[in-house]
Amino acid sequence: MRVQQLTGFGLSQLRSVDLPAPRPGPNEVLVKFEAASLNYRDHLMVEGRLYKGVPLPIVPISDGAGRVLAVGEKVSRFKPGDRVTTFYKSRWLGGRMRPEWEGADFGGPAPGVLQDEACFDAYSLALAPRHLDSLQAATLPIAALTAWQALEQAQLTSGQTLLVLGTGGVSLFALQLARLRGARVVVVSSSDEKLARAKALGAELGINYAKQPQWGAAVHEATGGVDAVVETAGAATLAQSLEAVGMHGFIGLIGFISGIDASFSLVQAILKRVRLQGISVASLEEHERMVRAIEAARLEPVIDRVFGFNEIPAAFEHLVAGRHFGKIGIDFSR
Amino acid sequence: MRVQQLTGFGLSQLRSVDLPAPRPGPNEVLVKFEAASLNYRDHLMVEGRLYKGVPLPIVPISDGAGRVLAVGEKVSRFKPGDRVTTFYKSRWLGGRMRPEWEGADFGGPAPGVLQDEACFDAYSLALAPRHLDSLQAATLPIAALTAWQALEQAQLTSGQTLLVLGTGGVSLFALQLARLRGARVVVVSSSDEKLARAKALGAELGINYAKQPQWGAAVHEATGGVDAVVETAGAATLAQSLEAVGMHGFIGLIGFISGIDASFSLVQAILKRVRLQGISVASLEEHERMVRAIEAARLEPVIDRVFGFNEIPAAFEHLVAGRHFGKIGIDFSR
Amino acid sequence: MRVQQLTGFGLSQLRSVDLPAPRPGPNEVLVKFEAASLNYRDHLMVEGRLYKGVPLPIVPISDGAGRVLAVGEKVSRFKPGDRVTTFYKSRWLGGRMRPEWEGADFGGPAPGVLQDEACFDAYSLALAPRHLDSLQAATLPIAALTAWQALEQAQLTSGQTLLVLGTGGVSLFALQLARLRGARVVVVSSSDEKLARAKALGAELGINYAKQPQWGAAVHEATGGVDAVVETAGAATLAQSLEAVGMHGFIGLIGFISGIDASFSLVQAILKRVRLQGISVASLEEHERMVRAIEAARLEPVIDRVFGFNEIPAAFEHLVAGRHFGKIGIDFSR
Amino acid sequence: MRVQQLTGFGLSQLRSVDLPAPRPGPNEVLVKFEAASLNYRDHLMVEGRLYKGVPLPIVPISDGAGRVLAVGEKVSRFKPGDRVTTFYKSRWLGGRMRPEWEGADFGGPAPGVLQDEACFDAYSLALAPRHLDSLQAATLPIAALTAWQALEQAQLTSGQTLLVLGTGGVSLFALQLARLRGARVVVVSSSDEKLARAKALGAELGINYAKQPQWGAAVHEATGGVDAVVETAGAATLAQSLEAVGMHGFIGLIGFISGIDASFSLVQAILKRVRLQGISVASLEEHERMVRAIEAARLEPVIDRVFGFNEIPAAFEHLVAGRHFGKIGIDFSR
Repeated sequence: MRVQQLTGFGLSQLRSVDLPAPRPGPNEVLVKFEAASLNYRDHLMVEGRLYKGVPLPIVPISDGAGRVLAVGEKVSRFKPGDRVTTFYKSRWLGGRMRPEWEGADFGGPAPGVLQDEACFDAYSLALAPRHLDSLQAATLPIAALTAWQALEQAQLTSGQTLLVLGTGGVSLFALQLARLRGARVVVVSSSDEKLARAKALGAELGINYAKQPQWGAAVHEATGGVDAVVETAGAATLAQSLEAVGMHGFIGLIGFISGIDASFSLVQAILKRVRLQGISVASLEEHERMVRAIEAARLEPVIDRVFGFNEIPAAFEHLVAGRHFGKIGIDFSR
Repeated sequence: MRVQQLTGFGLSQLRSVDLPAPRPGPNEVLVKFEAASLNYRDHLMVEGRLYKGVPLPIVPISDGAGRVLAVGEKVSRFKPGDRVTTFYKSRWLGGRMRPEWEGADFGGPAPGVLQDEACFDAYSLALAPRHLDSLQAATLPIAALTAWQALEQAQLTSGQTLLVLGTGGVSLFALQLARLRGARVVVVSSSDEKLARAKALGAELGINYAKQPQWGAAVHEATGGVDAVVETAGAATLAQSLEAVGMHGFIGLIGFISGIDASFSLVQAILKRVRLQGISVASLEEHERMVRAIEAARLEPVIDRVFGFNEIPAAFEHLVAGRHFGKIGIDFSR
Repeated sequence: MRVQQLTGFGLSQLRSVDLPAPRPGPNEVLVKFEAASLNYRDHLMVEGRLYKGVPLPIVPISDGAGRVLAVGEKVSRFKPGDRVTTFYKSRWLGGRMRPEWEGADFGGPAPGVLQDEACFDAYSLALAPRHLDSLQAATLPIAALTAWQALEQAQLTSGQTLLVLGTGGVSLFALQLARLRGARVVVVSSSDEKLARAKALGAELGINYAKQPQWGAAVHEATGGVDAVVETAGAATLAQSLEAVGMHGFIGLIGFISGIDASFSLVQAILKRVRLQGISVASLEEHERMVRAIEAARLEPVIDRVFGFNEIPAAFEHLVAGRHFGKIGIDFSR
Repeated sequence: MRVQQLTGFGLSQLRSVDLPAPRPGPNEVLVKFEAASLNYRDHLMVEGRLYKGVPLPIVPISDGAGRVLAVGEKVSRFKPGDRVTTFYKSRWLGGRMRPEWEGADFGGPAPGVLQDEACFDAYSLALAPRHLDSLQAATLPIAALTAWQALEQAQLTSGQTLLVLGTGGVSLFALQLARLRGARVVVVSSSDEKLARAKALGAELGINYAKQPQWGAAVHEATGGVDAVVETAGAATLAQSLEAVGMHGFIGLIGFISGIDASFSLVQAILKRVRLQGISVASLEEHERMVRAIEAARLEPVIDRVFGFNEIPAAFEHLVAGRHFGKIGIDFSR
């Protein structure tokens, strides 16, 4: 079977090798992968900026989907033929995360999905929503679950208002998942065209931050203060997000593309009694609740562009360029 | 102005009198009522089965809606022309209920809405959803808020499943409000025609309990166990509701038409780790959150039949007959 | 090594056999058991009233404590020499219980602790509080965790009042753990002597239900309504517990010794907005939080009486007699 | 009766005047004040740094305690002779704060307590804990409630660990209230003598930040990561607090003496899944829950120093010097 391995940091170190197919242990599942999707962490991983000490070679990319080929003798969760996705924090089944489980992330330190077949523990996989194909399902594990967790922590519900920043994978899932809950959504972006597309997905209001640098106050005025913000940008936007949020509001801290250290007004956070909540994906229990929600509503992930199994460098280039709207997929049959 | 007063218990004791219009105190609002809706508590009240010692005469009926005519000097919440509804637990603004506030319920012990004009404390009224007329808005205060509170306490969200019993006011609001949250809804009723109407409102599954007396097991099998039940019936249904609910499920205890004392299996409640939660309307804070949800989704209440200001006995007769689907309204202009 | 096996239902079918010592798998821990404690479920199990179809022979008794002798190569949670206890719901690490994990309970269906040495998965054991010996630590897994979970679900905190029924293992742990949280405790019992002992443990008020059959009203009057009840008795007491609890109060449904089907007043549950919550132990996450609390306060479990490894029938006889105050221990060195 | 009024900003503008005693309205209570306590907001208020536009003259100081002299005809909460304190956010009874209620704060914009007698709405006062005198009770309204609310929001319970910064009023109340809940407490201060006094109050560990500037890592190492931080200092300490806190931990944002804008590591907040929660006192419901906790444990507030009714300037000077340990009181009988 085909496996792509990173033999050193940098995409030029990606090698395709042929290995014998593995056999599942008693608690394992043998999966035939059909698709993957890219997250920014895959880029950091491949470039050696995430875990310098990870033993190489490693199979990159965290998120994948495919079909169950066989199950170990103790596995009752799945049967051959089921469509499944990876579950990124592979040992976090429910409740609180434990530090000792952080080391089991797919796509580094644990092997990723850029391989035809692989054996994984049955509790590190989840059923895909029935209405999705593998390419669509492969977009869910990190981006959709992060968005879901932010909404869960915010207890976002019908009649409330959510603010999302930009139109990357997490933001668009947050938009779509918030609509399923009956919430109204405001989007800020620097592109009128992307704002129009976000509205077509259900956003009620779009604000172009290039034209309106004080977009925080504008959002507050238009909404009376949003109930929650999915803060995917970080240092450059937190102050505006804090302007936009209402009394007792929620800010899910998720991304830091624009800077690792963020500054904010303590006075404003205190007087508004705001909650700033660090979010880093979620447990399998939450993943499965999200799948039920996606399935019940037949939600369709937004896929920006699809690359083939042997076009990984081009796919990463597209990711890093940052102009995508939604997720970037890898189709193993191409 | 016209006022209908109950001079003794029983509908035959209802008298129409003409009184001078009141003037609002500094924290009060003068409302011109245009519509009301009936709840079962109005029936119990009028028949003297709720508060035997309430001083008579009293203006009956708890739920009403109309227009603000004038506001007291300290009132900033409303302005003349606003459409408002009563807020039933008139002193419960937020947090937990206090026993001392129970005595301020509209329609007994405090005066109700069967009058052209009345002055109420500004925090015992709430803005109506903007897309509703007074007849529609008057259906909300008790029935919709009770349904909302059950869903709130259940933390019902997208992808989950709710079970509602019958097609009275609370049940239909629970169905509609659950749909706004992206939840799936199962309805049980003894009428195939009502089940069909409930499906038209968004229910996914209807079960006729007359044909399927063990409907609890049937619901469990069809859904894998519902996440929440809005238990409006009580003694006759609790055991089946407990069958229907899944692990860690929620049962909102709301009604007791079928009996005051309920029996249930402790073993089942314990092994499923079920929460049975007594629900009795909610605070103004929840009322206002509900109004935002109804307004954002332009939800339309289901009104079974409308009676005129002078047709109160016929309206109550229709209520007690129990064959309605949704709410019974009173239009003051008829 | 010594193992006691149940070869058929009934204590007369208990046989002592000698088996070779086991060796831990990669994720397992080899424990040398030094003590056990009895729970009522052990009695039901041994008598064949819990799982009729469980394959025999089986090693009985769920709760045990001892020392780690060796750990598998992938185990980082423990090291040789650590004092550990079993964790009863051996696969429930955190979040919500899954039905598929119910079958892994120690002492039936899975093997129990009545053996000198055994290998268990590392996540089905927990560190004992450092200040306790094995006999004390063996009392914790089911009884203390059940009490802890009830207080957790009730969010019991300082200044609140808890009601416990009787002086069995769960009730006394609830009393002690509630005191750690700064809560006041009321106890009802039929024995003045036991009430006096409960007060010595920190209870503020004791009521003899034999003398005061309407103890629910008495508790309500003395406390203004308790915040929470640990309902270990069931059918015979639920109505009184509902009398005793205050507005927005909590009743943890735990036991059903006095009857499997319970009847209660829906009207009272609704008007008080009471939460009745089914409780059946808890996850490892909660177990470990409880251990931290017990350790921080150096809480000492109440042990009624201790039997030797070969006195199991006498220990069960004492359990069933129901006159104990606290837990019944088994000391393997006796 | 004596009243101290601020006729312009700055303590030199404080004037003592003699006014006729007021009479309570139907929902009001006439209080004879016997004591007050100072908060930093009183200083900001008096210096004109809080509300520049507040109409003068104004009676300063938010926190006071005394005896009920008379109650209005509709008041059932109190009777003459009851010892009461002010409740600072005088209109926030429960649930969420509303912006329109912010303007009712005692001691500016609404009149404060530096007067012999005053009439207040019955729901803007609360019973004092029975074991405290007026001087002790007067320390509670802002400082103790802020600390209580932080612990409530953190859901701090037995076995958990709290970090408090310094030994001001809020920090010491947090220490004492955390001990009531069975939590362990770590204190950082620049004074070994204050650390010793904090340990005498129940702190387990004291760290001198002057000697150990990287105290965040030191606290994390000693505790495995604290569960909660009461962040009273702000800009200068937030980064260290974030070091000190554990996975899924809580940081209550309360003070900003050391700077209004705070910078922190987004990466750390995200990877630890930390909650940073703005805290600004709390509702009457929480105040009353706190009073029950203080009363049940007979907790004694820590009073640094007491000044007389006519020594206000000296009291403020002591406050601003910042060397106090606990609260600064005003005894109206001196």
